[in-house]
Amino acid sequence: MSADSYERLVAKLKRAHYLSTVAGLLGWDEQVNLPPDSADQRAEQLALLAELQHAAAADPEIGTLLTELESGLGISPADPLENAKDRGRSSQATPTPSLTVEPVCHLISDKPAVQADRAVVMREARRDYDRVVKLPAEFVAEKARLSSAAYHAWAAAKGKSDFVAFAPFLEKHLALAKQEAAYLGWADRAYDYAIDKHDPGMTAAKLTGLFTELKTGLVPLVRRIAESPVRAKNGIFKGFPVEAQRAFLRDVTERLGFNYRRGRIDVSLHPFCEGSGADIRMTTRFDADNPLDSLFSSIHETGHGLYEQGLPLAAQGTPLGQNAGMGVHESQSRLWENQVSRSRAFWKFFEPRFRERFPAQLAAVSSDDLYLAVNEVAPTLIRVDSDEVHYNLHILLRFELERRLFAGELEVRDLPAAWNALSQELLGLTPPADSQGVLQDVHWSGGAFGYFPSYCLGNMIAAQLWATALKTYPDIEDDFARGDFSRLLGWLRTGIHRQGRRYETLELVRRVTGEELTPKYLLRYLEERYAPLYL
Amino acid sequence: MSADSYERLVAKLKRAHYLSTVAGLLGWDEQVNLPPDSADQRAEQLALLAELQHAAAADPEIGTLLTELESGLGISPADPLENAKDRGRSSQATPTPSLTVEPVCHLISDKPAVQADRAVVMREARRDYDRVVKLPAEFVAEKARLSSAAYHAWAAAKGKSDFVAFAPFLEKHLALAKQEAAYLGWADRAYDYAIDKHDPGMTAAKLTGLFTELKTGLVPLVRRIAESPVRAKNGIFKGFPVEAQRAFLRDVTERLGFNYRRGRIDVSLHPFCEGSGADIRMTTRFDADNPLDSLFSSIHETGHGLYEQGLPLAAQGTPLGQNAGMGVHESQSRLWENQVSRSRAFWKFFEPRFRERFPAQLAAVSSDDLYLAVNEVAPTLIRVDSDEVHYNLHILLRFELERRLFAGELEVRDLPAAWNALSQELLGLTPPADSQGVLQDVHWSGGAFGYFPSYCLGNMIAAQLWATALKTYPDIEDDFARGDFSRLLGWLRTGIHRQGRRYETLELVRRVTGEELTPKYLLRYLEERYAPLYL
Repeated sequence: MSADSYERLVAKLKRAHYLSTVAGLLGWDEQVNLPPDSADQRAEQLALLAELQHAAAADPEIGTLLTELESGLGISPADPLENAKDRGRSSQATPTPSLTVEPVCHLISDKPAVQADRAVVMREARRDYDRVVKLPAEFVAEKARLSSAAYHAWAAAKGKSDFVAFAPFLEKHLALAKQEAAYLGWADRAYDYAIDKHDPGMTAAKLTGLFTELKTGLVPLVRRIAESPVRAKNGIFKGFPVEAQRAFLRDVTERLGFNYRRGRIDVSLHPFCEGSGADIRMTTRFDADNPLDSLFSSIHETGHGLYEQGLPLAAQGTPLGQNAGMGVHESQSRLWENQVSRSRAFWKFFEPRFRERFPAQLAAVSSDDLYLAVNEVAPTLIRVDSDEVHYNLHILLRFELERRLFAGELEVRDLPAAWNALSQELLGLTPPADSQGVLQDVHWSGGAFGYFPSYCLGNMIAAQLWATALKTYPDIEDDFARGDFSRLLGWLRTGIHRQGRRYETLELVRRVTGEELTPKYLLRYLEERYAPLYL
Repeated sequence: MSADSYERLVAKLKRAHYLSTVAGLLGWDEQVNLPPDSADQRAEQLALLAELQHAAAADPEIGTLLTELESGLGISPADPLENAKDRGRSSQATPTPSLTVEPVCHLISDKPAVQADRAVVMREARRDYDRVVKLPAEFVAEKARLSSAAYHAWAAAKGKSDFVAFAPFLEKHLALAKQEAAYLGWADRAYDYAIDKHDPGMTAAKLTGLFTELKTGLVPLVRRIAESPVRAKNGIFKGFPVEAQRAFLRDVTERLGFNYRRGRIDVSLHPFCEGSGADIRMTTRFDADNPLDSLFSSIHETGHGLYEQGLPLAAQGTPLGQNAGMGVHESQSRLWENQVSRSRAFWKFFEPRFRERFPAQLAAVSSDDLYLAVNEVAPTLIRVDSDEVHYNLHILLRFELERRLFAGELEVRDLPAAWNALSQELLGLTPPADSQGVLQDVHWSGGAFGYFPSYCLGNMIAAQLWATALKTYPDIEDDFARGDFSRLLGWLRTGIHRQGRRYETLELVRRVTGEELTPKYLLRYLEERYAPLYL
């Protein structure tokens, strides 16, 4: 046990990290640049990289070094506070292990802050390492094969609205998900394992509590808006040249704080944000008759990008330089997209600039029409087309179904009926076909259970962060009206970005906002944003 | 020794190959997309890939499999016909080993063609493997460190025209180049080794013969053109919008045969062509006042791209799917750039299309002025700015100096004087400063000796191929005048592209053109192209 062992551990982690960044870049290139008939070659490259990445992440020396370092700290992988499988069980009020570790004099450094950092790295490296090595290679290969077959089956089934054809793949994925949880020691809590993979420390029970409260407040608000005679006008945006849209969104995203010296934005079919550390690649798409789609998808990705750019670069490749999970990531994209960029203050600054770039196209669009278009609310069956009010209901639906599936309360074959019933209950809409219902999302075809809740978690966290920011800087929207977003970004940098994976999701929220995560801020925000417009 | 061993060898070769394609893509991305402050991260990624590539290429199992397969064929690595170090010594008339290998019944397949293919793969895999494993890791690291230091020293020395500051680095590179040759068993023929690395089978003696004959014919032609009163007009191209240039060169390169479903063209500081197999990435650059620079650099890269796209995709990752060397590669780029695209027939088709895209810009430019601009000849001290007539003289100069350095006839400290004397003799120009003379090229700072001759070799091969194509299809230029280049491309595909690394450079030329490589076709082509214009 020595400083040298710690450095060797970090070098091994960085190696796995840089391999994953290479695979990430190839994935980005595939969506942005790849010539149409070059896909087979890219698949060969990615398969080889996946193999090398796995070898680097499962390097037995990582295990040896971790065991050695853990024994120096007086902890063992079986320690209940340290072991990932027990995270969800620890009380919300218990500080995370990194904070309870006592300074150990013979460890690497005598500075407590350095020791705490290293304890975080070891804790999270252990979590990652166990997840990689406890899954047998044959299992990983089987899941990969199933995902590939299930993706194609899903795409075909969606085309024909034929859930029965997809059901066996989903059943198999469900069985594998339970098997995976068992390998990791979560046999009795398979759905919690799936959730914890995306949001460390989160559980189905905690989500149920949060989502139930959210639903209670949200459904009445949605009903009231649905009954409102106010409607955003259709078809008021026509003929926005792509080059001018590109220049406008560059102006917007740069003012929000995205550093284009360490990132870029390109075009792809579906917008996404890829990369880490010093090289963040965002994408968007353009539609001459829908400039807000491109603008808001770019702002959303900018939120993800700002988070990644704010992670400590010096810690790149270690857990201290990595994001805290899906829900926290989504909170950053949603905060910038919704709380910031749908605000009056934002548009006070940007509306004149928008009109300057598109004087003819916006001549007949009043300020009120523009602002209502920015904040359009209308129910839809399709999650990805949903506004921010309805969006959470789409997630509640999926969470409830996943929960029942894992609990054995629902059979896969009964999923369409359950989906449709919940859709009617939550959205007031019943899908006319499964293609617009249970078959609409790609996620399950990859076995990505426990992923959907992160979206709603992100919305709740964003609203709670926003409430705290407003409490901290009551005049912060005056900044926005001047095109200045640096105070908000600085506050997020300190509280969220620079923490890396130091805290689990709920602990991070508690530390930054001073209270437990609650849906009340999301409900209050939605009420305050939409009631004046629609009610 | 079994079919299975051969398949395992191929799998190992492909693994190293796909890693090199990943590194290649990252290199392309670095030149085309990388945000300005992301270079350090890219360096980390590339260093890791270099390490993995080396490990894959030096995998001991490749050595074991090769030895096993070679013993089955009754050859050993020490066999003089098989060993790379003796390649250059075999007579030009001796068929390459792949053709002398007798069918061995117990080998992999009973089809002679299959056996011949496999013998080529084993021969070239042995060459590559020996070159990787015979160099000690410390030597490779030392050369890499020197190259990095020497690059910066060269850039600084060039800026100050201070050769003395660069000389020690060049001396060290020269010593390492000799050391490298010794490791590979070429101690007494270090320059031949450097040449053979770029052009298999080529030697300094053979190049001396070819270049002497070329010089004898070329210097008088250059002198006659220099005395001509005819001059291309300066500054006749102004204000060519980049988007229209892009569209025009897309039209040109697509008609030449580049498959954009398996490749693309982007912008970088210096044009290049990267990639292999199903994904070829070319680059160009744009100057509104110099549309021919972009066009001809794109056509040059298209020549490289067509070669790579024509290599047998099914053999990708094995020597049968790889290019035959630098000289042959350059012959493809030069043939399309010069013989094809500076021809009257080419412009008969493309001039109207060029004028259609740029009617105002070309209104005052006559057809004769345009064609003279396409074929401008003017001496310059700088190789990369040189026209195709003078270009070869720049190479002759560098080859002669490299030859003398390796032979011990010239000391590094005397290089500037020798450069200037040769420059005066060949080009009729003496550099006013070393920055425009001996310090102008980057190559030597990376220890890339034996590289320059490939450019001139490429020009000679291109001209000889062109003469053969004209003999085979006397009316082929009529195709060009109709915008059809498919007969030429098809002929190159069969004779050159589909051969991969089956033949060494001179053998390939002999097989396709029916005679030994000679500079007479290059001299004849230059005379026929430029005499009517200038004399």
